[in-house]
Amino acid sequence: MQGEIITIGNELTSGRTLNLNAWYAAGRLTASGLRVSRITSVGDDFKMVSDSLKKAMKTSRFVIATGGLGSTEDDITNEIVAKALKRPLCLDRQMFEQIKCHAEARDMEITPSLEKMAWMPEGSKMLNPEGTACGFSLVEKGVRLYFLPGVPDQMRYLLDKFVLPEILTLYKTLPVMRQRILKLYGLNEPSIAEILKELQGKTEGIILGFYPHFPENHITISLRGKDEPSVTKELGRVEKEIRRLVGSYIFADRNHGMEDVVGRLLAAKNLTISVAESCTGGMIGHRLTNVPGSSEYFQGGVVAYSDQSKTKLLSVRKETLEKYGAVSDKTVREMAYGVRKYIKTDLGLAVTGIAGPDGGTKEKPVGTVHIGLATKDDTYSGKYRFWGNREQVKSNTSMMALDWIRRWLNGDPFLPGI
Amino acid sequence: MQGEIITIGNELTSGRTLNLNAWYAAGRLTASGLRVSRITSVGDDFKMVSDSLKKAMKTSRFVIATGGLGSTEDDITNEIVAKALKRPLCLDRQMFEQIKCHAEARDMEITPSLEKMAWMPEGSKMLNPEGTACGFSLVEKGVRLYFLPGVPDQMRYLLDKFVLPEILTLYKTLPVMRQRILKLYGLNEPSIAEILKELQGKTEGIILGFYPHFPENHITISLRGKDEPSVTKELGRVEKEIRRLVGSYIFADRNHGMEDVVGRLLAAKNLTISVAESCTGGMIGHRLTNVPGSSEYFQGGVVAYSDQSKTKLLSVRKETLEKYGAVSDKTVREMAYGVRKYIKTDLGLAVTGIAGPDGGTKEKPVGTVHIGLATKDDTYSGKYRFWGNREQVKSNTSMMALDWIRRWLNGDPFLPGI
Repeated sequence: MQGEIITIGNELTSGRTLNLNAWYAAGRLTASGLRVSRITSVGDDFKMVSDSLKKAMKTSRFVIATGGLGSTEDDITNEIVAKALKRPLCLDRQMFEQIKCHAEARDMEITPSLEKMAWMPEGSKMLNPEGTACGFSLVEKGVRLYFLPGVPDQMRYLLDKFVLPEILTLYKTLPVMRQRILKLYGLNEPSIAEILKELQGKTEGIILGFYPHFPENHITISLRGKDEPSVTKELGRVEKEIRRLVGSYIFADRNHGMEDVVGRLLAAKNLTISVAESCTGGMIGHRLTNVPGSSEYFQGGVVAYSDQSKTKLLSVRKETLEKYGAVSDKTVREMAYGVRKYIKTDLGLAVTGIAGPDGGTKEKPVGTVHIGLATKDDTYSGKYRFWGNREQVKSNTSMMALDWIRRWLNGDPFLPGI
Repeated sequence: MQGEIITIGNELTSGRTLNLNAWYAAGRLTASGLRVSRITSVGDDFKMVSDSLKKAMKTSRFVIATGGLGSTEDDITNEIVAKALKRPLCLDRQMFEQIKCHAEARDMEITPSLEKMAWMPEGSKMLNPEGTACGFSLVEKGVRLYFLPGVPDQMRYLLDKFVLPEILTLYKTLPVMRQRILKLYGLNEPSIAEILKELQGKTEGIILGFYPHFPENHITISLRGKDEPSVTKELGRVEKEIRRLVGSYIFADRNHGMEDVVGRLLAAKNLTISVAESCTGGMIGHRLTNVPGSSEYFQGGVVAYSDQSKTKLLSVRKETLEKYGAVSDKTVREMAYGVRKYIKTDLGLAVTGIAGPDGGTKEKPVGTVHIGLATKDDTYSGKYRFWGNREQVKSNTSMMALDWIRRWLNGDPFLPGI
């Protein structure tokens, strides 16, 4: 069962407004098992709206259009629809009364532009006869057309309350559509693509997708089927197969970030953590404390950006800095050890590196990063090389550092460094 | 001069991803004086992409398409374009070499899916022959077609660097369109709206816009005119008028963030800073270190999330914490004083507060935040109440703290607290 979405408004084609309406409607329709084959955005222009409407009606069973229903000059959807479908505009008495009440309650006069809203193409049915959010529907050549306001709140309300239920009732034979998302870190894109290609052949009906969300990669598993239990079962089977192939690279599902996962693991094991950050400048602490309740396990940290702050606040030895440099395994180990000892936590996590754009050398180019972890019994360290600009290096460094905690708590090996 | 945008990807028609690419491209084209007549989003589907392309070519002088250029199974834009325009796919040697280099540098093998990216419709021209972001353009029946990747960073880079300049060079008869953006912090939206409303009447041809970017507010000043000098002059006049009315609430122009402004001021005055963060968890240090070269003035900081880390790392007195609590003027002053002394910087900045969702009380509800600043001669502190969720409170706190530095360095008064 497929439909189209048409969003109308100069604010969309000029890039002034982000198209939240199309995004919301597409998401709601997809989640209900319907397919959106095309989303078109056009300005408040007779020819473009009219063309898009006619084109959509050729291939779709329903069309949802938003925008152009208000009382200003450029709200001309009613007129366009009337002309395009060759139906006269008729005054909807009920709608007119409603506008009158609404205006009177606000001590406003009924202006021609307000009255305009009550003139609708012949055969239209108001969507929300009792309320103030206005929209209408009509049937043309067997295709259902819905016209909703562009104001997001009103659009969402009418879509959820009137449009979706009507479409779902009309086309009862709809299959169920479900989707899962798995978030990965550290496996490169070609490897993921190869794995998915192999799987795709063996999983009929399943649609596998793959989307980079730097520095993460997300795999989506989508399935359309007759009923909930069989769809859920099949999705579970494919998810299990992917988990078998990809293993510990998967760190979370759609609803969680790396910091949530790490936080839950720490809380579950009743462990506390402190962080010593150099090149990330506080980003790891910032991420950890984005999670409500993080004060349960996160005690604090030190941002040791200068050499002096490394020696002063973390007791990194001057000789270490002189002999090996601030960006080295030795230094990161002393940072991790120092922060754990000072803040008296179970785990001490440390990073040091060169975020760029300056500061790189031939031996230690921009993107060189060391990660250290001090625990009760051991101190670990590793060296990585990240690509990209300053923000990307910081982002990858904080991700890798948190992934170390996740892997250590899960008993998985750290991702291989260089 | 009108064009169309086609965005390709199942993630768009399923509502999984917000169409940021269409929004960005439409905004950039409009700001350059070009008109976007339609934006179409379709899934990774031969017929829909092919139809949309052909339809766009009928009425437009240029078409910008994004998505489907990567190395995964559903990236089939190259093939679709080749079929739709009846051009064979040819191996682009240069592109292939580049992919090879890229892969080798990362110790990856050249898989068939990677190689696929180098097969392009006959007559295509690579947009970015030297770089790693791939896109191509071709001319069909006098219409310029541009194909860009769906990854927002790459799309934006190629659009700004290659596509826009080419279109603007080809169609020189465009009127000049210029826009300025002024970023404000701390002035509420109704006040800004009032000021703009008043100005709008006095400035013919000027379009004033106002966009909230939490926690900032941005004012745009746009003008279309015959030539550059007159447009620039008029924009300058209006900007001056706005600056007169809004004053120190304006902290930056379009190209800079608060951290850039603060960084430049610190560097210009040759001052160093350290930060003691409680509720922001490291976000202030993270923001300061997003600026390249920030090591010149940012020495480091302490994330003192627990009471113990406040006493241990910042020498906040136990009696202060017991008597006034961790979220108090007294505590934030000792934090600022402590971090300045320990890290030996000219300025010590501190924040403590309740980010929520838990931890609020009747006297100190969620969103209560204290900011402190220690300088050579004085220690300042102030109390604020921020609304919103945990992330919003953190975001506003880091913004206000940086704004304190900006205002102090500029000799402006701090924003009034409660």
